[in-house]
Order: sequence, then C-alpha cells, then structure tokens
Amino acid sequence: MDAAEFRRRGKEMVDYVADYLENIEKRQVYPDVEPGYLRSLIPEEAPEEAESYEDVVKDIERVIMPGVTHWHSPYFYAYFPTAHSFPAMLADMLCGAIGCIGFSWAASPACTELETVMLDWLGKMLKLPEDFLAGTEGRGGGVIQGTASEATLIALLAARSKIVKLIQADHPDRSETDIISKLVAYSSDQAHSSVERAGLIGGVRMKKMPTDSKFSVRGAALQKVLEEDRAAGLIPFFFCATLGTTPSCAFDCITELGPICNAEKIWMHIDAAYAGSAFICPEFRPLLNGVEFADSFNFNPHKWLLVNFDCSAMCQQRKRSQLPFMSHWQIPLGRRFRSLKMWFVFRMYGLKGLQAYIRKHVGLAKEFETLVRADQRFEISADVVLGLVCFRFKGSNELNETLLKRINRARKIHLVPCQLAGKFVLRFAVCARTTESRHVQEAWSHISHLASELLQELPH
Amino acid sequence: MDAAEFRRRGKEMVDYVADYLENIEKRQVYPDVEPGYLRSLIPEEAPEEAESYEDVVKDIERVIMPGVTHWHSPYFYAYFPTAHSFPAMLADMLCGAIGCIGFSWAASPACTELETVMLDWLGKMLKLPEDFLAGTEGRGGGVIQGTASEATLIALLAARSKIVKLIQADHPDRSETDIISKLVAYSSDQAHSSVERAGLIGGVRMKKMPTDSKFSVRGAALQKVLEEDRAAGLIPFFFCATLGTTPSCAFDCITELGPICNAEKIWMHIDAAYAGSAFICPEFRPLLNGVEFADSFNFNPHKWLLVNFDCSAMCQQRKRSQLPFMSHWQIPLGRRFRSLKMWFVFRMYGLKGLQAYIRKHVGLAKEFETLVRADQRFEISADVVLGLVCFRFKGSNELNETLLKRINRARKIHLVPCQLAGKFVLRFAVCARTTESRHVQEAWSHISHLASELLQELPH
Repeated sequence: MDAAEFRRRGKEMVDYVADYLENIEKRQVYPDVEPGYLRSLIPEEAPEEAESYEDVVKDIERVIMPGVTHWHSPYFYAYFPTAHSFPAMLADMLCGAIGCIGFSWAASPACTELETVMLDWLGKMLKLPEDFLAGTEGRGGGVIQGTASEATLIALLAARSKIVKLIQADHPDRSETDIISKLVAYSSDQAHSSVERAGLIGGVRMKKMPTDSKFSVRGAALQKVLEEDRAAGLIPFFFCATLGTTPSCAFDCITELGPICNAEKIWMHIDAAYAGSAFICPEFRPLLNGVEFADSFNFNPHKWLLVNFDCSAMCQQRKRSQLPFMSHWQIPLGRRFRSLKMWFVFRMYGLKGLQAYIRKHVGLAKEFETLVRADQRFEISADVVLGLVCFRFKGSNELNETLLKRINRARKIHLVPCQLAGKFVLRFAVCARTTESRHVQEAWSHISHLASELLQELPH
Repeated sequence: MDAAEFRRRGKEMVDYVADYLENIEKRQVYPDVEPGYLRSLIPEEAPEEAESYEDVVKDIERVIMPGVTHWHSPYFYAYFPTAHSFPAMLADMLCGAIGCIGFSWAASPACTELETVMLDWLGKMLKLPEDFLAGTEGRGGGVIQGTASEATLIALLAARSKIVKLIQADHPDRSETDIISKLVAYSSDQAHSSVERAGLIGGVRMKKMPTDSKFSVRGAALQKVLEEDRAAGLIPFFFCATLGTTPSCAFDCITELGPICNAEKIWMHIDAAYAGSAFICPEFRPLLNGVEFADSFNFNPHKWLLVNFDCSAMCQQRKRSQLPFMSHWQIPLGRRFRSLKMWFVFRMYGLKGLQAYIRKHVGLAKEFETLVRADQRFEISADVVLGLVCFRFKGSNELNETLLKRINRARKIHLVPCQLAGKFVLRFAVCARTTESRHVQEAWSHISHLASELLQELPH
C-alpha cells in the first residue's frame, strides 16, 4: 500500500470509525461468542501472497465485531470506563505517522518535552503541590506510564532501592538480600490486584490493611500494624494508598496515613487510577487532600479524562523521592509519542469541558442512585462519590448472583460484580462518553424488570 | 468534536499523514532544537476554554515537527529500525475506535483470541517448534508484550519463581529470600541494558558473559562460569541469550548454550528483538537453530516486521515452561487490541512481501558494506549478517568520534556509535521502509566526503 492508497483507505477507515461510533448503541454490548470462536473463522497460517485491502476490511464485521465487548456503548456499565474521544484518536493517528521511539531526548526531543509539559499541565489542573511538577528546572515531575500497574511497580521498586541504601548507610555490612527479606509493604484490602503483584515481582512481603465501614484504610490501623511489624523485626518501607478503589470507589484516609508514613520514613504511593481525573473539579479536589505527604502519585487519564488508552500519569514529589533506582522511570525502554493525545484533548475540551464531562458522569451515577434508593427492594452498598454505584437486592448473595447473571445474559446492558464485606454486590459504573440520562433510565427499568421477574419466581 | 467533525478532521489528518510520509526526506532528519525548546512555545497551563481544531493543528508544524527526529526518513540510520506501514496505521485507527481493554477474555473476546492466533501465525512464519504455538488447545503459545524489556523481565521472574519452587520441593525449610539471595542469572556482555535492569528489578545477581571474537557467547564460557558459581554456592537459574545484539548484531551460540542450560536446569530466554523478524526468510532461519532448547523466545515485529510500535512477540515453550508466576504473562493488566495491526500487515504484505522487505534491507546493508570495504581508509568492525553495518576509520577512537560528530552535526543523515572490543565504532542501520539504493549511495558519499575533509585537517 502506497501513500496514495492510504489516502483513500484512511478516509474510508475514518468513515468506518465514525459509523461505528455513531451507531454503537445498536450493537449488542456484550458478544454471544464462545471461547475459541475466532480460530475457525480465519486461516491457520498467514497468507503467502498479499491479500487485497477489501478482503481484509470485510473481515472486520465477519471476524472481529462478533467478538467485541463494546466498551463505548452507552449500555456498557462494567469495570471502570476507558477513555475515548475524537481528538485523542486524531492525535494517535499523528503519533503513528511520526512513529518515533522516545527512549531518550535525542531519539525525538519533541516526544520527551511535550510529555514533561503535559504532565505539568495535568499537575496544575489537579492543583498538585509545586514539588510534583517539573517546572523549568526540568527535574522530577511526571511521566506517562502504560498502566497504573506499572506505576505501582516502579514506585515500589524505587522505595525498595531507597530503603536499602538508607539502611546500608548506617549498616554497611548488611546485604541487600538480607534487608529485602525483612521489608514489608502495605496496601488496602480493597486495593487492586496489581498492587499485590508489584510486591510479588519486587520480592517483598505485602500486607493488606483492614478497612473501616467506608472501605477506607485509617491511620490507626496502619499505626497498629507498624508497631507489630517493627516489634517482629520487619522493616516497613512502602504504603500504597488507593483513592477510588476498584470494588466501591472508596478512599483511603491519606490525611491520616500520610503523616504516619512521613514520620516512619515509609514511601507513600497514591494509586488514584480511576478517581484521579475527577480531582480537576474543585468540588472533588478535597478527596486528594493529603497528597502533599505522598512520594509518588498516579492516575489514569486513559480511564476518565478522554485520553485513549494507554496514558497513565505518574508524578513524583521531587524533594523527597528522586527515584533512586533507574535513570528511566519505567519498565519498557521504548515509548510512543503519547503526550500528543493529551495535548489534543486538553486543548479541544479545555479545562471547563473536561470538568463538565466528569460532572456529567457523576450526575448520571447520582441519577441511578436515586432510582435504586426509590426501590424498596434494593439497597445502596457504598457511598456514591463519583461515577460508580454499588447496589444490591436486599437479600442473599445467591439472589444477587442470579440477578447479575440474568442481566448479563439478556445482553441489553453489561455489568460486573464485586464483593463488599462478604456481600455480593452489583457495580454500575458510568463508562461511555455518550451515556445520557435516557440510557441510565433505560438500564434501571431493565434491571428493575428482571428483578421483578426473578422475585416472582421465588417461593413465597 | 462530534462524529461529523471527526469525519472531516480525520480525513484531513489522513492527508497530513500521507503528505508527511511522502515528503519526509525533504525534512532534516535530526532536529536543530536545544533541550527545553518546547516549553516556551506553548502556554504554561491547559486552556480554560476549548480551542478550535485549527488552532491545535497549526501547532503541529510550529511546535512538534521542529523537535522531531524523523525515524522514517530514508536518511535515518541510527539505533535499529522501528516498524511503520500503512496497513498497521489503518489497523491502529480501528484499534483506537474499538478502544477495548483486553485484560480478560470477557473484556473483549476478539482481542484475546486474535492475539493468540496471530502469535501462532508468527510462530509458523518463523518455523518455531510446535511447542511454542498455542494451537487449538489454547494453552501456552504467545502473547504481545509492549517491549523486549518487558519480555525479558517476565521471563526472568518466571524463571525465578520456578527455581524457588523447585528447590523448596526438596528443601521445604529454605526460605524464598534465602534462595533468591543465591540466584545468579547470565547474559552476554553485549546484551541490551534492559537485561541488566531485569536483574535489578528481580533482585537477583546478573553476570555478563565474555564473548568471542564475533561478539558471541559460546558454550565453553558458560560451562566455565557455571562450575565456578556452583562451587561458590550460587544457584544458576537464568540465561538470556541474544540473537542480534544491539552493538553489532552478533548471535550467541544457542546450539552450544541451549543443551547446557537444559542439562543444568537453567531457563534459557532468547532476546532476538531486532533480528527475529529476519527468521521468516529460509536463508536466515538457521540463525535461530537451537531455539528448541529455549524456555521462552521474544522478538519485536515492531522493529523490522512492518507492525508499528508497540508489538513485541513473546512465546514460551509449552512443555518445559508453563510460566508459573502469574496468570497474566505481563506487567500491565490493561492492553490494547494490538493484534489487529499484525493481522492487517501479515495479510496485506503476505509472507512473500514480508520476506522481500527483509531481503531488501539486508541487501542495502550489504551494498553499504561493499562501499566501505572499497575504501582503504575504513574497516568493517563486525560481520554484516542482517541490516546493520559496523564500520570505522582505520585510526584512533578520537578520530572516529570526531567523524561521527561531524556526520550528525551536518544533519544530512543520522547515526549512532557503539563500542566494540574497546573501539569506537559507527553503526549504519538500514531503518526506513522507504530507504533505497540511492539513499545508501548518497549516505556513503556524504560520509566519505566528511572523512576526506577531516583527514585533510590532520597534521601529516
């Protein structure tokens, strides 16, 4: 394919993409296929001879679309959102064309520099303390990671390296492996599985802290375990706080936890993967209070800030941290020109447009909450703070599991569950950019209808 | 921006991309900017109000392009290539539109399934042993990683976990940290820096093996160090072989190393990041002989197989390995629908088209080698096996450093150096898809001219 054909095919693809997105709600949100469906639809080997573009493109609807879970359908309420916008897609086209690998400044100066400035723009939107910005000095500040998992791992490794150096400064005879064998890291029992994996990869003990009735880790809980662990000869070195947990969007109490971590020389990393985007709104910014105690902070503009995946923003507190471990703050060496999509999105929405977007989603979640609360058969299982509503039948876990199965089997909307304090709970996350009140109303009336059917079948 | 505007802007962007690539050789391959150039060109904060698309788009030429190193210019001969093709860009547009996050089968079945089948297609192109394919059983086989760095890290972590379990099976009282403190991993002294970093992250000792006159690790060298290390009470557990090293595209002798690793229960991982793509050609496939001894194998279609970054293919030998460490074979949990671009590229080029592409690049490297050899002032510093030519002035390192500086300062072409056996060497890597004989001839005549100028300035 030469440039001339690309002009034609690219424009056709732009139309295909626009058609797909304009009509996405007509597609069934969750596919009907069974595991292994795809293999039989295509040859077992790559073709010897080149095929025509027509042949490839017609297979999109035949092979791919029947197996797609449509994350950008307004009937998709599962997991957390993944961001999606037209400006981000345009920027990604440019990123693909430039196709540089920004592993060093010289490898493409614009790639490194725009990223640094975009992370500063983002830091200012979030009103992060000055120390989290690169500023004109160009030291510290933020970088784009692929995912929050990578950010947590990098933070843990940096903290591990820092504590080893700190201890060896006083005890030059202690080996690294001996020190590492005594290290202990902490996170909430509500934390994402990637936090536990970071501990496994880093080869350190990871303890899950109990949470209070709001699913939040409190200072007293940390204080208690620290005392026990120090008494047992362990070395606490890392605390991963979550702002906006995956099950229920709960917030660890970093205003209590931060001062403890600072006093005890424990690296505090904040994982605000989903919730972080909301902090650009003044009314949600208090949820980030305490960030000044953190050594590193991460959230995913690719979740809720209209920047297509992957774009996970990680900032470090310059004074305290100075990531001692690696010259590059990341696992992979190569990197795409991902800041282009931040630049396009921030400019074409403007801060006000981004805030309006967050508020719209929170409003839709509140609207759904109101519908649930108005139905005596249901209860809300956790505070609705942002765009997630956790709810359930007042009844057994089994009943709720059955309800969820029926909801997902009906294929009209798509939800996933969570466990909260031993209870099976349904999560309703406002996800798609195009979700409107009518979709939320429709979703609720559908759930309510399936609930009535289910209750009618029960023995009295 | 709504879908209607996206239709218009997307088509404009397609034309911009086509224009950029059709005219790329008119742009200076390496930029003139100084570090920090970009910050002053754009505001310090994101705008409050939305800007128009026109305002954003005109800044591409004003802000971005002056700081771009044009990796796809036919005058770019630095590092190794990064892949780039129109079919891959079209597939990436589709990937962005679908915008699913394939962290599980249910999260988008097509995303998981196409990836598995594409890795099988790739494995068959490379004539990998059957055990490296998923096949219809759907166990094992390959996955797409972001980069070779991640693949090496995953392999090392898997090997670490496997050896710990193995030892604990016989000695249930030995702690994991005690075992890890005795582990030792190996790689070539020519291996990429990411291999050393994998060791640092995994918290294990990493030893660099000496190489022979061809910059290749041989079996005897490994045998010797294994004996020494076992005698010293260490536990050898991982060898990262490189096929196509970064400095000189050298090949570790895996037919010698593999049987040793197998006999000694050492996990052999093969990093063929650059060279791997060439193995689709029967004449280069012998370079991969010995892969049957490997536990895991990785190369980057995003380097030399026309699939835009990121797309690093990792396969495991099913029988022996069974990655014991993680249910997911990767650091990040989220993933894009990256197999789409493999599918588009493999079909639109066909195996023959891909082979022709590899052969063309190798031919251009041979052509450059011939030019260098015909000039008595220069020498070839390492066998030219694939698309990389390592060469230098017959003279001091200082002289060669000066020559490289002048080449890069002239901005006509872009090269980077390497060190080989204490010598400063210039690397000429055929990179761009559009590089033709005339560009190579032009590059050599330019280098030759600068060399003459430099030699004339020297005192006789």
